[in-house]
Amino acid sequence: MKAAVLGGGVIGGGWAARFLLNGWDVAVYDPDPDAKRKIGEVLSGARRALPALYDRPLPREGTLTFHTDPGAAVTDAAWVQESVPETLSLKHRVYADIAPYLGADTVLGSSTSGFRPTQLNAQGGQGAKAIVAHPFNPVYLLPLVELVGDAGICLRAADILRGIGMHPLTLRKEIDAHIADRLLEAVWRESLWMVKDGVATTEEIDEAIRMGFGLRWAQMGLFETYRIAGGEAGMTHFLAQFGPALSWPWSRLTDVPEFDDALVDLIAGQSDAQSGHLSVRDLERLRDDNLVGILRALKATGSGAGGVVRDHEARLGPDESRAKGPITRE
Amino acid sequence: MKAAVLGGGVIGGGWAARFLLNGWDVAVYDPDPDAKRKIGEVLSGARRALPALYDRPLPREGTLTFHTDPGAAVTDAAWVQESVPETLSLKHRVYADIAPYLGADTVLGSSTSGFRPTQLNAQGGQGAKAIVAHPFNPVYLLPLVELVGDAGICLRAADILRGIGMHPLTLRKEIDAHIADRLLEAVWRESLWMVKDGVATTEEIDEAIRMGFGLRWAQMGLFETYRIAGGEAGMTHFLAQFGPALSWPWSRLTDVPEFDDALVDLIAGQSDAQSGHLSVRDLERLRDDNLVGILRALKATGSGAGGVVRDHEARLGPDESRAKGPITRE
Repeated sequence: MKAAVLGGGVIGGGWAARFLLNGWDVAVYDPDPDAKRKIGEVLSGARRALPALYDRPLPREGTLTFHTDPGAAVTDAAWVQESVPETLSLKHRVYADIAPYLGADTVLGSSTSGFRPTQLNAQGGQGAKAIVAHPFNPVYLLPLVELVGDAGICLRAADILRGIGMHPLTLRKEIDAHIADRLLEAVWRESLWMVKDGVATTEEIDEAIRMGFGLRWAQMGLFETYRIAGGEAGMTHFLAQFGPALSWPWSRLTDVPEFDDALVDLIAGQSDAQSGHLSVRDLERLRDDNLVGILRALKATGSGAGGVVRDHEARLGPDESRAKGPITRE
Repeated sequence: MKAAVLGGGVIGGGWAARFLLNGWDVAVYDPDPDAKRKIGEVLSGARRALPALYDRPLPREGTLTFHTDPGAAVTDAAWVQESVPETLSLKHRVYADIAPYLGADTVLGSSTSGFRPTQLNAQGGQGAKAIVAHPFNPVYLLPLVELVGDAGICLRAADILRGIGMHPLTLRKEIDAHIADRLLEAVWRESLWMVKDGVATTEEIDEAIRMGFGLRWAQMGLFETYRIAGGEAGMTHFLAQFGPALSWPWSRLTDVPEFDDALVDLIAGQSDAQSGHLSVRDLERLRDDNLVGILRALKATGSGAGGVVRDHEARLGPDESRAKGPITRE
């Protein structure tokens, strides 16, 4: 199998590494004379990290080639991934260049953070049918790819992505910046206010994230975490408690939806569908097992919350008698 | 050492567990007749999880007592933690009740998610000097505590918190909802829009978080992650690239700061102070080591991205020849 990577920056290089290490041949097109070196550095990071996830060997690495002609790069490729800068006219020009060389079943994915498929496929692209295939840095380690666009192509794309160890999330509707970058943009905007207003430095904001809710979000998301926070009373109780904050000055970002019964029912119902097969007690145990595993992993490097655990352990006397409770991990 | 916990819900129970398992005696005041059972359940979760973080035993567990009189609960306590519901008049009433029994050096912390110290210590509290000591659920595992209020008390509080394995983050200024909950509120508001508009379900939003940026935020925060994303060109390059998105429709939350040179310089300077001692290459390696450790921890439980790794491993044939690159973890 062959993949073509158009644009060899941090994201393009990550895609190249993800495909290569999963046994695909990869053809890179990038006019930058420095592209070979840049991709080489991403690739050496990936070779060090990705195989360490698995207790079985990855397939034999594919062959990496570099091309100055985009048509040659995409010929015979089953997947073409465009990761050129975020300028629509530039993306259109690239699509027009490669259109004659694309196979009928080739997936053309764009790494765009914000453009919608309608914009990608507007006049100028010469009939190329691109979908959004938006990954997260480092692409060789993080599984998420947001897919947006033609349903049939997305279905084929999802299958291929699962084959290289990724997690496709296909969107119901196209929307500027898809899902994840909308959340990131909201945090970014609020953070900029805090830095600007002298409330917190960049480091303090990072600490506020990685010592607390960042650890929760690595393993559950926003809603499942809040379902647990509702405790025995559940999601509707949680919503009743925290709904009013929408009208409080808890953020500078003041455009809020009306928190009516219809929205409460919608969220509570979706949360039941998502997590209702597990009791809150089960969810708590799973969360705690995940957090212990994550914190122990970070203890090994000393990063963030792992550094806190490490420092605290250094204060614990080795001679103290054991805690009374059962401390074995199940 | 003795701590008093006023309010025995999920948060109060977490505080009780954190102190107890670090050798403190804990006195709980909660009028709820069911408080003993509820705290018992949080405590059994904590006994299972917290010791598993450390390779040395925790101190011998302290003694847990329950009180129907708040004055008796706080007598002789070095730390009093108030975690009653988020109603200011209720908090004031509790402070007035305990004020005569507080020692001169007793830290009175409030778990409030949103109130500022000025509000906590306004008339009605009978001269109690409360600080904000805002923890994150589960309190027995997550290290972050946001401290806001009198500088001297916060200093003393920070020392005590480090002694029980927590990470104090003392705020420069008081602000509604402190730091972390402002970020959470921004994500919450944007997520509510997406659910309401039918763009994504609660489960899809959770997946968009935990399969991607949530994994980054468990170990680095927003700004350090973006510093890496800037690649060799660094933070100023990143800011130049992503600044314009503030005027794009990437979020429904439309109140944004002006992204002028002063703000760019402020952020780039703070980022240098935070991470400038490490090269981007060093940061990448640290990030990758952390991500590999986190993903392997999640693979053990099968949660989120760990489930993706597990599924992919099942597809990898055990007979394939080894990948060519160096796959040993350093």
